[in-house]
Amino acid sequence: IDKEKLLDGLLAAGFDEVSCFSRYQSFLYRKTSPYKPSGYLVSKLRSYEDLHKRCGPNTQSYINALERFKSGHTIHSTECRYLVWISFSGLGNRILTLASAYLYALLTDRVLLVDRGKDMADLFCEPFPGNSWLLPLDFPLSDQFNSFDMKSPQCYGNMLKNHLINTSTDSVPSYLYLHLAHDYEHHDKLFFCEDDQNLFGKVPWLIMKTDNYFVPSLFLVPSFEQELSKLFPEKGTVFHHLGRYLFLPSNPVWALITRYYHSYMAKADERIGIQVRVFDSRPGPFKHVMDQILACTLREKLLPEVDLKDSTVTPLNNPRLKAVLLTSLSSGYSENLKDMYWEHPTVTGEVVGVYQPSHEGFQQTEKQVHNRKAWAEMYLLSLTDVLVTSSWSTFGYVAQGLGGLRPWILYKPENDTTPDPPCRRAMSMEPCFHAPPFYDCKAKTGIDTGAVVPHVRHCEDMSWGLKVVDGHDGL
Amino acid sequence: IDKEKLLDGLLAAGFDEVSCFSRYQSFLYRKTSPYKPSGYLVSKLRSYEDLHKRCGPNTQSYINALERFKSGHTIHSTECRYLVWISFSGLGNRILTLASAYLYALLTDRVLLVDRGKDMADLFCEPFPGNSWLLPLDFPLSDQFNSFDMKSPQCYGNMLKNHLINTSTDSVPSYLYLHLAHDYEHHDKLFFCEDDQNLFGKVPWLIMKTDNYFVPSLFLVPSFEQELSKLFPEKGTVFHHLGRYLFLPSNPVWALITRYYHSYMAKADERIGIQVRVFDSRPGPFKHVMDQILACTLREKLLPEVDLKDSTVTPLNNPRLKAVLLTSLSSGYSENLKDMYWEHPTVTGEVVGVYQPSHEGFQQTEKQVHNRKAWAEMYLLSLTDVLVTSSWSTFGYVAQGLGGLRPWILYKPENDTTPDPPCRRAMSMEPCFHAPPFYDCKAKTGIDTGAVVPHVRHCEDMSWGLKVVDGHDGL
Ligand SMILES: Nc1nc2c(ncn2[C@@H]2O[C@H](COP(=O)(O)OP(=O)(O)O)[C@@H](O)[C@H]2O)c(=O)[nH]1
Ligand SMILES: Nc1nc2c(ncn2[C@@H]2O[C@H](COP(=O)(O)OP(=O)(O)O)[C@@H](O)[C@H]2O)c(=O)[nH]1
Repeated sequence: IDKEKLLDGLLAAGFDEVSCFSRYQSFLYRKTSPYKPSGYLVSKLRSYEDLHKRCGPNTQSYINALERFKSGHTIHSTECRYLVWISFSGLGNRILTLASAYLYALLTDRVLLVDRGKDMADLFCEPFPGNSWLLPLDFPLSDQFNSFDMKSPQCYGNMLKNHLINTSTDSVPSYLYLHLAHDYEHHDKLFFCEDDQNLFGKVPWLIMKTDNYFVPSLFLVPSFEQELSKLFPEKGTVFHHLGRYLFLPSNPVWALITRYYHSYMAKADERIGIQVRVFDSRPGPFKHVMDQILACTLREKLLPEVDLKDSTVTPLNNPRLKAVLLTSLSSGYSENLKDMYWEHPTVTGEVVGVYQPSHEGFQQTEKQVHNRKAWAEMYLLSLTDVLVTSSWSTFGYVAQGLGGLRPWILYKPENDTTPDPPCRRAMSMEPCFHAPPFYDCKAKTGIDTGAVVPHVRHCEDMSWGLKVVDGHDGL
Repeated sequence: IDKEKLLDGLLAAGFDEVSCFSRYQSFLYRKTSPYKPSGYLVSKLRSYEDLHKRCGPNTQSYINALERFKSGHTIHSTECRYLVWISFSGLGNRILTLASAYLYALLTDRVLLVDRGKDMADLFCEPFPGNSWLLPLDFPLSDQFNSFDMKSPQCYGNMLKNHLINTSTDSVPSYLYLHLAHDYEHHDKLFFCEDDQNLFGKVPWLIMKTDNYFVPSLFLVPSFEQELSKLFPEKGTVFHHLGRYLFLPSNPVWALITRYYHSYMAKADERIGIQVRVFDSRPGPFKHVMDQILACTLREKLLPEVDLKDSTVTPLNNPRLKAVLLTSLSSGYSENLKDMYWEHPTVTGEVVGVYQPSHEGFQQTEKQVHNRKAWAEMYLLSLTDVLVTSSWSTFGYVAQGLGGLRPWILYKPENDTTPDPPCRRAMSMEPCFHAPPFYDCKAKTGIDTGAVVPHVRHCEDMSWGLKVVDGHDGL
């Protein structure tokens, strides 16, 4: 039982259970993952935990490092080095970038510190034993995080562009701002080059703002390659393992998750998640999207067909029950589906219950309950047996990754038309990196970074995106 | 099993099961009723069935009677006499008036014929073996039914008023129109007097339009008194028995009922029905109504309190599940309740799922699916273990009667204020007669008809209404 409870060693034992019920209860709600973390990953997590305990907030090392940060000094070889992650963008995005930042910290022996923004502390438990991952509130630059962008003087790309720094220099600043958001340009993209990485090694404080899951491109940095394949022999499991390790719903969110699960999902014979995210400024619901949901789920036999002729069949006494968990900002899709399965019998004799936890109408990233519910919904989706997601949505990526689910992805509709085919099965459960660089650092020319190694490929839902896939996953 | 299946003899055996699944399957969805029909009622139902087979549509007796109806002749003592029920008003009203008409037919040895209106044939199975209860479409007056009112020349009250008829006459017309709708006046109310009843006995065809459950006042007609107490030794069971006997959901409606039940209600440990009917022309939802629903259900301990402080409690592993079936034209009340039980834990540790089959926005009495759903919802409410209803609503009366449930009635709010107390337990499961006469036929003066006999009392939800209660039911 302990093995199950600790997710095959992913989680450290010995935490106080009451402060974070989800940590040791998640295994009760999810089938045991078929993907086991490597022993190497597990030991790396444990040694990171030691590092974090030694260097984290309010330790002597942290206080020293902060002193030197303020005085602008650079590094002594024995010192702790830090990566500060800035809270930025929607919740799904934040979860993916935080996982990316953590992996980067693991690869570069840095201590990850989390800018809590409006609600990071409310949504998640502390993942590391013995010390907090939250950046102390008195961190000198905190109040500038919002204004950091590619034009900031501390921005690495900007400094490069203005020849204020170069990769062969010996004198480096005490901190650098790394701008890895979707709007970043050539010089900031050099983050993914080995020479630049070598430079960063000498910088004690890195401060990062990103809204992208940049893990796939880390696989293309030669100096990370070997370590990554030791950490993740099954390559397509990066977010699956790191996500379950890092993102533990806080007690209030765990209460939302478990209550909803017991109220609406627990008794079903099978659970189907449908994540509907429509990137359209008009309010919706849209007929072409509804048609697409139906075309996908029926054609792929995820949901049973209905008999529109209502041929009279003797009702079954104890029919098989499928529960559909549909998440969406609008209530129209689930209502439509619910009515369909109420008004007509299925050809299989199954009954289908349809549930939608919230329909908040529009994205409200700053409201506490709203984000608690958004997080609860991603997690609930991850507890389903079969998952359908929307193209381009990090909300869906989080669900698929946590759940270890290779989803069916609804193609992004163009011109208000239902795509044909409506969806396809994902190659892996990994998230897609939406804004990868297309640059060969050695040759200094553009290349297709989706064709360099077999395990980094273009995404199903975004042709220019990159995602990590397993060698054995066919297209 | 046959005893259960036939509802203790209420239903006749030998019907074709396929044409009406609900007839012999309803017992699977409902706890066995603690109220048994009297042997006298059962034999009366069987002899009515014989009468109906002998005199119903397209029999020689019917053809003869129709001939004489057309020629304006009056009755021979051996002939079949008829009561034509006109389809009128909302579905809940129609179900109650049809039950009233049937009881009146039983008491007066008439054959009940049902004007099918827009959808009676679509919603209900045939209740009588061997012949239809539907008035043949070629019935001469069918196309005038809509225009019948208290001013019609054939209207009994109108004829009385104009001295065209009187109770001591020997010459009676071949048919009379009985106007028993809410707007009826003194002369039509004389329907409930013995002398007038004696006159009706000689009239072969009675045609009745009503939107009221007039059974309570039949208990005050001396000539019906004895027969009624033999039929219903437990007085408060009239609609419970007649309703389950007469109103069998047609196959399409039964499919709606059973599918919904299996999808959302079957697995719960307890089922609570809340019928919300707001008689207000503004759209709603209204805060004072929501407050009232909560005040009633929490105070009466029908639903568990929530802990608004969200005190952290270890989530239970397999909590008790209560399913709330809430019906309403608006979706606001169930959404509010659903959110409350999602956002907060209950003090009992139970979880509460909230379901609303439809929210049609406004009453649409002429649409087929709409009325199918309305009927399905009344029936689903009747399958709950505990029922809360709204004052004045026949929709709720039907549910409580079919279910054998003594509901908690939400008092009618005045001035947008939550009533205090918010609700009370009903004295009996009988419907309320909203427009009873207050007249002493013998003394020819007004009296309080709610104070004549112990088993006919004023209603809980309407002070001037009358309902049948059992002697032992306290106030
Ligand atoms: N509760 C809820 N919120 C949603 C849903 N879809 C989008 N949102 C909100 O919109 C935000 C979308 O941003 P993000 O999570 O980064 O996902 P993305 O925009 O789909 O990549 C979420 O964080 C939520 O606040 C949904 O299905 N349910
Ligand atoms: N589906 C549905 N229809 C309703 C509901 N409440 C009212 N209606 C509609 O409004 C009509 C109300 O008329 P009736 O059944 O006579 O009930 P009453 O007006 O409440 O006495 C119903 O027949 C339905 O058509 C409800 O909760 N669900």
